[in-house]
Amino acid sequence: MKGNVIVGQSGGPTAAINSSLAGVYRTAIDRGAGKVYGMLHGIKGLMDEEYIDLSDYIKNDLDVELLKRTPAAFLGSCRFKLPDIHQDMATYEKIFSILNKLNIEALIYIGGNDSMDTIKKLSDYAILTGSEIRFVGCPKTIDNDLALTDHTPGYGSAAKYIGTSVKEIIRDSYCLEYEKGLVTIVEIMGRNAGWLTGASILAKGEDCGGPDLIYLPEVDFNVEKFKDRVEKLLKTQSSVVVCISEGIHTKEGKYVCELAAESSKFVDAFNHKQLTGTAAYLCHYICKELGCKTRAIELSTLQRAGSHLASRVDILEAYQVGGAAVLAADEGDTGKMVTLIRHSDDPYQCGTEVKDVHKIANDEKLVPRNWISHDGTYVTEAFVTYVKPLIQGDVSPIMVDGIPRHIIRPAAKKR
Amino acid sequence: MKGNVIVGQSGGPTAAINSSLAGVYRTAIDRGAGKVYGMLHGIKGLMDEEYIDLSDYIKNDLDVELLKRTPAAFLGSCRFKLPDIHQDMATYEKIFSILNKLNIEALIYIGGNDSMDTIKKLSDYAILTGSEIRFVGCPKTIDNDLALTDHTPGYGSAAKYIGTSVKEIIRDSYCLEYEKGLVTIVEIMGRNAGWLTGASILAKGEDCGGPDLIYLPEVDFNVEKFKDRVEKLLKTQSSVVVCISEGIHTKEGKYVCELAAESSKFVDAFNHKQLTGTAAYLCHYICKELGCKTRAIELSTLQRAGSHLASRVDILEAYQVGGAAVLAADEGDTGKMVTLIRHSDDPYQCGTEVKDVHKIANDEKLVPRNWISHDGTYVTEAFVTYVKPLIQGDVSPIMVDGIPRHIIRPAAKKR
Repeated sequence: MKGNVIVGQSGGPTAAINSSLAGVYRTAIDRGAGKVYGMLHGIKGLMDEEYIDLSDYIKNDLDVELLKRTPAAFLGSCRFKLPDIHQDMATYEKIFSILNKLNIEALIYIGGNDSMDTIKKLSDYAILTGSEIRFVGCPKTIDNDLALTDHTPGYGSAAKYIGTSVKEIIRDSYCLEYEKGLVTIVEIMGRNAGWLTGASILAKGEDCGGPDLIYLPEVDFNVEKFKDRVEKLLKTQSSVVVCISEGIHTKEGKYVCELAAESSKFVDAFNHKQLTGTAAYLCHYICKELGCKTRAIELSTLQRAGSHLASRVDILEAYQVGGAAVLAADEGDTGKMVTLIRHSDDPYQCGTEVKDVHKIANDEKLVPRNWISHDGTYVTEAFVTYVKPLIQGDVSPIMVDGIPRHIIRPAAKKR
Repeated sequence: MKGNVIVGQSGGPTAAINSSLAGVYRTAIDRGAGKVYGMLHGIKGLMDEEYIDLSDYIKNDLDVELLKRTPAAFLGSCRFKLPDIHQDMATYEKIFSILNKLNIEALIYIGGNDSMDTIKKLSDYAILTGSEIRFVGCPKTIDNDLALTDHTPGYGSAAKYIGTSVKEIIRDSYCLEYEKGLVTIVEIMGRNAGWLTGASILAKGEDCGGPDLIYLPEVDFNVEKFKDRVEKLLKTQSSVVVCISEGIHTKEGKYVCELAAESSKFVDAFNHKQLTGTAAYLCHYICKELGCKTRAIELSTLQRAGSHLASRVDILEAYQVGGAAVLAADEGDTGKMVTLIRHSDDPYQCGTEVKDVHKIANDEKLVPRNWISHDGTYVTEAFVTYVKPLIQGDVSPIMVDGIPRHIIRPAAKKR
């Protein structure tokens, strides 16, 4: 590389997004980049000229290892959708003037669907204006809903956290007995795609029966049928553990959480409806109908930030993908996203490719219908075969005084 | 030992309660006990003559290691308070006839305050009736609220889980910026004692500022003052992370969660009021008052079941305490509880003693007032000195196919 590289992180944080950052940094340095800048809080921060020189923070190999083990976005993240080029040229002129000033040769953006939209627009603008800056996307999302890639870095670690935590919850749920039984409803992230909730199947093994029911948003949810299922299970079991996606909805398209009067009406910048309390609502309903003890558990933020339980496969792939993005840009690619391509399940083999970001942006990959049981209450063996290789191996936290050590920038002050 | 030993687990499960069971089993076998029985679901199961021979399940050293790493009560647990002896002799006659039939020499009960009440009553009845069976209690509770012992097995692992998870949450909370800031409220277990919530201070270190505010139930909570605090912090920070005990209450003694109309009215067998939604209520309030983005995170069951992140000190002490209970019974003690006595903080040194259970039962140990900051919004250095040794070291999970392996009895069927 002759010029400089700038990298940003966008969208919801994960346990692996900093490993991709480490991969970008290392590969850029190895390939001769002058400086590797990090934009603070993604493209939004860049527009305010907020960036750092990564070499001020990553000084040695230990720093790289710490970065790979630090959850959430080291650089800060944003949810920001660039305007359409023809509607607002000024925004693009501003971004490119900053990039030119910094002598940027390649911009790498680590993120999900919305971030690939950013890569698409910036690379389109570069082509329109004859700029030679290259733009490459690096996939990241615990949701695993990006098209054209076998899976996304971040998903494997979240899946491992979910499988382990659900298994521990199942163990816990059989301890105390209640006269009319105990129903535990675990709410897992996933608005439209059930990849994370499906990963609760990982709790199942020789030593654990796994969740009793698993409901993904890919299949319409029927509250009454759900109650009947639970009631039937309670006839033979003292404990029933159900895993549900936050985004399960009725046939009419109404989110289950909306059935509760007090559901939040918050809408984010991408017009996503914010969901809360699906498990809480269903617990309330089951308790009222069946008279049993219920408890709602939201895995919440912990499932995306639990780097102490990261998957080794995931962290290494995230690093690889970061490196591959720099490599692609250095070789002249632009408007591309690095994808993971699986060559075999067992032994697991997976490599990287680059694909046109125009084919990816804003396209949501859902769990195939035939990976969900016919009646929509479980996932099939095909799902297990898919997810199992992604959670293998551990990345031991670097423990200092009993707690995992992270690497950070000084705490962000309010702007 | 000449006769047999029976052991039970009672109260809320923890990550360390099975390590105590392992300690009881091993020591009893080593000291020549004929059989080591496990009562299923505590004293309640014993009354239904539900017990197992532990040697059918623990067959080798690997099984012992798995047991030490399996969260929740291997034998099943119960919340059951024995009637007063003079009110219901029949219950005691029944229990003792079962114990005599099994040729029991010592009964070890692993549990918290309510369980020590059981040990007290059974040993009192033995003395009254001239029975030679010995009854010894083994402390266990994540709540750490047992009197006369420096700390309780189970607490250290929960503290380590809380410190780590809160640190990961703090990292996560600085990723995305919101116009009016983000307030994250983490709800931690603890009805009257703030030991668990105080452990959130463990997130603090060279690489993390720790929670911004920590509220324990030992100090009255003022909702308005809380809001003012948060408002002030939001002037200089983009993110505020607050850790609260589920049991925080107003000066008038009203639980904060009760301030929400929909709070649960469930009362358990010990007349404890079941609490839910303190963080959710405060988030709603803060959002309404300050207009900022808020999120409520309940660590819920995960904090007591998270054996994948157990503290080595805790797991080893739990094992030790189990062994010491058998030793005490074998040496003729009855109506006693094993306690942990700390000889020094640094280097940490801790041993076991036995104390009269009459002095322990139903006595709740709270966090000393001078371990909480004057204004009641943080814990002091004395708290840190106390808790830090208890979270040291790891117990690596035995991973099979990417997920921690446990040891179990066949899943309990409904009785």
